[in-house]
Amino acid sequence: MTITGENFVAGARRSAAETFRAKDAASGEEFGEAFAIASETDVSDACAAAATALGPLSTLKAADRAAFLRDVAARIDALGDTLTQRAMRETGLPEARLTGERGRTVGQLRLFADEIEQGGWLDLRVDHADPARTPPKPDLRLRKIALGPVAVFGASNFPLAFSVAGGDTASALAAGCPVVVKAHPAHPGTSELVAGAIAEAVAAAGLPGGVFSLLHGASNELGEALVKDPRIAAVGFTGSRAGGLALMRHAAARPVPIPVYAEMSSINPVILMPHKLAEAAGDLAKAYVGSLSMGVGQFCTNPGIVLTLAGHDSDRFLAGAAEAIAEVPAATMLTGGIAQAFDSGSTKLGASAGVRLIGAGAEGSSLCGRAQVYACDGAAFLADEGLADEVFGPASLVVVCDDMAQVHQILEVMEGQLTATLHMVKADYPAAATLVPVLERLAGRVIANAWPTGVEVTHAMVHGGPFPATSDGRSTSVGTMAIDRFVRPVSYQDMPAELLPRPLREGVDWFPVRIDGKLKVR
Amino acid sequence: MTITGENFVAGARRSAAETFRAKDAASGEEFGEAFAIASETDVSDACAAAATALGPLSTLKAADRAAFLRDVAARIDALGDTLTQRAMRETGLPEARLTGERGRTVGQLRLFADEIEQGGWLDLRVDHADPARTPPKPDLRLRKIALGPVAVFGASNFPLAFSVAGGDTASALAAGCPVVVKAHPAHPGTSELVAGAIAEAVAAAGLPGGVFSLLHGASNELGEALVKDPRIAAVGFTGSRAGGLALMRHAAARPVPIPVYAEMSSINPVILMPHKLAEAAGDLAKAYVGSLSMGVGQFCTNPGIVLTLAGHDSDRFLAGAAEAIAEVPAATMLTGGIAQAFDSGSTKLGASAGVRLIGAGAEGSSLCGRAQVYACDGAAFLADEGLADEVFGPASLVVVCDDMAQVHQILEVMEGQLTATLHMVKADYPAAATLVPVLERLAGRVIANAWPTGVEVTHAMVHGGPFPATSDGRSTSVGTMAIDRFVRPVSYQDMPAELLPRPLREGVDWFPVRIDGKLKVR
Repeated sequence: MTITGENFVAGARRSAAETFRAKDAASGEEFGEAFAIASETDVSDACAAAATALGPLSTLKAADRAAFLRDVAARIDALGDTLTQRAMRETGLPEARLTGERGRTVGQLRLFADEIEQGGWLDLRVDHADPARTPPKPDLRLRKIALGPVAVFGASNFPLAFSVAGGDTASALAAGCPVVVKAHPAHPGTSELVAGAIAEAVAAAGLPGGVFSLLHGASNELGEALVKDPRIAAVGFTGSRAGGLALMRHAAARPVPIPVYAEMSSINPVILMPHKLAEAAGDLAKAYVGSLSMGVGQFCTNPGIVLTLAGHDSDRFLAGAAEAIAEVPAATMLTGGIAQAFDSGSTKLGASAGVRLIGAGAEGSSLCGRAQVYACDGAAFLADEGLADEVFGPASLVVVCDDMAQVHQILEVMEGQLTATLHMVKADYPAAATLVPVLERLAGRVIANAWPTGVEVTHAMVHGGPFPATSDGRSTSVGTMAIDRFVRPVSYQDMPAELLPRPLREGVDWFPVRIDGKLKVR
Repeated sequence: MTITGENFVAGARRSAAETFRAKDAASGEEFGEAFAIASETDVSDACAAAATALGPLSTLKAADRAAFLRDVAARIDALGDTLTQRAMRETGLPEARLTGERGRTVGQLRLFADEIEQGGWLDLRVDHADPARTPPKPDLRLRKIALGPVAVFGASNFPLAFSVAGGDTASALAAGCPVVVKAHPAHPGTSELVAGAIAEAVAAAGLPGGVFSLLHGASNELGEALVKDPRIAAVGFTGSRAGGLALMRHAAARPVPIPVYAEMSSINPVILMPHKLAEAAGDLAKAYVGSLSMGVGQFCTNPGIVLTLAGHDSDRFLAGAAEAIAEVPAATMLTGGIAQAFDSGSTKLGASAGVRLIGAGAEGSSLCGRAQVYACDGAAFLADEGLADEVFGPASLVVVCDDMAQVHQILEVMEGQLTATLHMVKADYPAAATLVPVLERLAGRVIANAWPTGVEVTHAMVHGGPFPATSDGRSTSVGTMAIDRFVRPVSYQDMPAELLPRPLREGVDWFPVRIDGKLKVR
């Protein structure tokens, strides 16, 4: 597949007068094709086509929509090395990571294909009539339908799994919603390759081209125009807090407000319980440094803050972390902008009152991130709100607390998080039991004895959490429950069988279904 | 139970310096007790107590929370005539309606009690670990938890079923969320009686008083303070579009934005298909007038607009409607303000270009609503956006269309609705089949051969719909699915059994549960 640098508007490639070029992440140099910057007309045309495609996509039989998603997966797989090599150059991420991420992306598409066929997301309900009741009880049947066209903003840090055919796109298409993707300007070629695979699958399925569009561009105005287009019904976003908040404002200010699912900012607190720390301070320190420096720290689930209790074991942990981090090589960050923001964020962290540098990895070019561990005591942390700000990259802060009461105090004032982690052994369970209710309130996922970087794509995953971890803590952007974001319920009262959606007709035996309150499965 | 006029703040009655008095709906005269106007301190104290009560209420065993809801229902039942007589005087609604509404209110509480025990709302999911996989797959378990304290705004038009212990309160308590109700000032005595029943049930269950508070007052500032309190996690509202939009703005402007479930404005289009109209123009006309004048037209599902095709049958329908409406007596509206707004709204409608009065009921006092049917042609309707505005009360507009294409055109530009109705016989099904996809997009409930006034409280009901029918079309405020508004998912990774919530522990056999993707029921 050749990269042409064009946008995909409603199934056709379209060029533009204004263009930009991709950058090689490692060198910072521009290279290759000129990418077309989408105009307001492109946005409008893509959204209009998406609105037209809503009917055909959302009324496709489950098996056919599943087949379409599987075909998208197969075509992305078929891109093979072309895709990973391009992504390596644009993002600076290593080959093994990108090969893994490609596997995750296609696995995700296949999981949603299975999910459509499984049918639980339809939430089918049938309440039979009772004509003998006073007043007569009507027949009521419920299913969920696609919300409408979804705007998806590709993320820089997951060029495949949270970008053009990532979790937001996969779950929206699974729900029957056409998608208009704003490609992340940090990986335009990667975006185009994946978009080409989707567009081919759309055509092969005989679906209208409006099912999928891809728009290039870096300006805030482009994103704003997309969110404000009256045909867009919901927004999926993974990125910075400032970016997510701007999209929320635009969506709320529309004549018809729409939901925004923005995954924004999280420092993912990790609590090292005292008995566990006594047993394994050294191993914990190594694993900690591994987690915080993985992918140059560019994960939303990066362990940005660790809480320990002051004492000998905590000192051992810090010493171990200092030793481990010294071995971490400098590595290229996703973009020059991210590297610069990391540098100023970590410098500010290090210069904060009461904060000391524990250790750092090798220093690289200005495009690299240098791994860093800092520490402060609980009082210093509580005295400075800024210490809880996310520093996107391989930096983390160990907060050495006076006692468990101070740990509670810190967690209770903390903003919403994607994850919260407890490292513990059995002797820690009584103290941990008092923390679990606090952590449930704080985060979307509570983890025991693991590090938060690692998000399983499955049914019971929640990659979400209270604001500002996400804009809407009632949802997840990873795992099959993500489909729930893009549907809404419709009830049919006394509708003749001929006019009912097929799964709701008497005798069709579509499962699961709740009949007169009782849930029945296949 | 004696009415004292006090607020309920965190389980205790509390008076205030400033007060107001209830009005007799029929006479417009003030009567009875002085009601305490809640202060900012009362709001803050109620919200603080609600935050403290969240843990105890949300961790109560399902059976115990169900028993609590059933006790609330029993105590409201026990209020008997005291409650209905007071509500009659404050709202002007007739006894039979209020007795029915009391039945609906307690039935609703009992339905949610059953729903908690049934357990589907928890959305339990278990994905077992696979240590042999590379990388090892963790154990993940998911449940939904209470969102947090909920602010509920009582509605004027359902003094029981959508007020202090109405659908929003019942579903929030069922989810485990403490509730702070802002009583509607049009029925403060009714509100206090019901609040007393809830407060007694809270005490009897040994729950903290913060589980429920009731605040009196009519100012916008009171509502704003409640929505902006940092401890409030969600808002339930039924009322005017202006009121709902204001709450949405306040919620979005908070440092931590929260969801607002506002049920606002709907004109509930009814389409009379040609073969049906030919068969039953007279019967349809009578039933139409019955539906639009029921409860003095003060239902959110009132049929505010009827679409017919021009011709002899449409003329017969209009003649029948004119005849039937002449028999409708004038009746007291809920408040003087509502009567006044209805008068000016219907006058404006009648004075609109191309709109003619078809017939009207008896005229009453300035506190009464006079039933009115208007008509215009399709072109006139399309030319004037104002004709699609809700006129809250017993007025309705028949739009006589040129052809089915014009019916489609009108429905496609219409704003989101709670309901959309088709009256049809078999010969109409082919044309109806092309309308159903349009109506699904337009409304939360699609009705065949009935009138929209009548909302069954059951599992498959959707009382919701796209904006501006509601602020959030992804939800319903009636029926068991309403509980989904007040929960969010939490995932537990590799959590030891001792620290897992009980329903997620291995071998507990809590159903329904999705195990490794497969849904299992009891």
